[in-house]
Amino acid sequence: MARGSTKEQIIVAAVETLHQKGFNGTSVQDITEAAQVPKGSFYNHFDSKETLAVEALERYWQKVLNGLSTLGDEKTPAVVRLNRYFQHLNDVARQAGYRTGCMIGNMSAEMPDQSRAVRERLAVLLAAWSRAIESCVREAQADGTVRRDMEARTIAMFLLNSWEGAMMRAKVDKDAVALTAFVDVAFGALVT
Amino acid sequence: MARGSTKEQIIVAAVETLHQKGFNGTSVQDITEAAQVPKGSFYNHFDSKETLAVEALERYWQKVLNGLSTLGDEKTPAVVRLNRYFQHLNDVARQAGYRTGCMIGNMSAEMPDQSRAVRERLAVLLAAWSRAIESCVREAQADGTVRRDMEARTIAMFLLNSWEGAMMRAKVDKDAVALTAFVDVAFGALVT
Repeated sequence: MARGSTKEQIIVAAVETLHQKGFNGTSVQDITEAAQVPKGSFYNHFDSKETLAVEALERYWQKVLNGLSTLGDEKTPAVVRLNRYFQHLNDVARQAGYRTGCMIGNMSAEMPDQSRAVRERLAVLLAAWSRAIESCVREAQADGTVRRDMEARTIAMFLLNSWEGAMMRAKVDKDAVALTAFVDVAFGALVT
Repeated sequence: MARGSTKEQIIVAAVETLHQKGFNGTSVQDITEAAQVPKGSFYNHFDSKETLAVEALERYWQKVLNGLSTLGDEKTPAVVRLNRYFQHLNDVARQAGYRTGCMIGNMSAEMPDQSRAVRERLAVLLAAWSRAIESCVREAQADGTVRRDMEARTIAMFLLNSWEGAMMRAKVDKDAVALTAFVDVAFGALVT
């Protein structure tokens, strides 16, 4: 199989390794070994592990964006799309055996005060993720299926953060309980 | 000021350091320097950083327990106690400048697959924390202030995990928005 450039191999390996072991649990050597490239080649492409972490987050975000595309499918009622979206995130977590969790959530818990560059990137990605959910919440409020006594923006932020918190708990408990409780309570309480 | 035993100094320093920098971001030397004890003394008291992390979590839990005692104040309506409890957690986070977050949440995101001992301890503490909230939710359901169409146990788990998720987001955004959204949406949607 053809492999990408050294830089590309490093980014692909970094997404995998940083997602599994966290920023401080991963050394540059862990990444170059996973990428099967010489350790010395790292600094030809990246200033630091921090710079690479920002690129790896961007790459991970592309996967999140792919999943978010289902939220825009206008043939399905908005509230059904929202529910399916979070069920889909839960399915992905289950298939991964409740390991690794969400790379964006993990880094948010681990290191926002350690790296300004990573924190700023996390803030931008979480804001974009919230906005994608917000559009769908607004549609569901317009068709009367989600309660209207709270702003779509606030509900969307709540949904995303609450899912991240449930994912964190699932990593500890290694079962579906927290993620199921999230969907049941959030949708039970917000859907009219 | 009298200082505790070397072991006690190490535990106190570990709570502070692990909370701030995470498990993998903290070395044994960081802890012994913060404790102002010789590095060599560490292994007289602890097998490993992992063993110390479990003791540090236990110590941190005592602070969580102190905060939880307000949930048992039967002179105040249960739903008010619940709301005040989470507002109190939000105040603590604000006073800390949305740094550090919750040590239990941070370790849950960072390392459950890295250490079985830490994961098992996190699971026990999160279960105990959920149960304390559950008792108060059950009281609020009994007096008709919290909706009864969901189990108290499920609501309690949802509240704790959702707060943890909001705390994670607040660490990135460095503002109150996520924590305020949590209280507004959760209580707005669950209180009858």
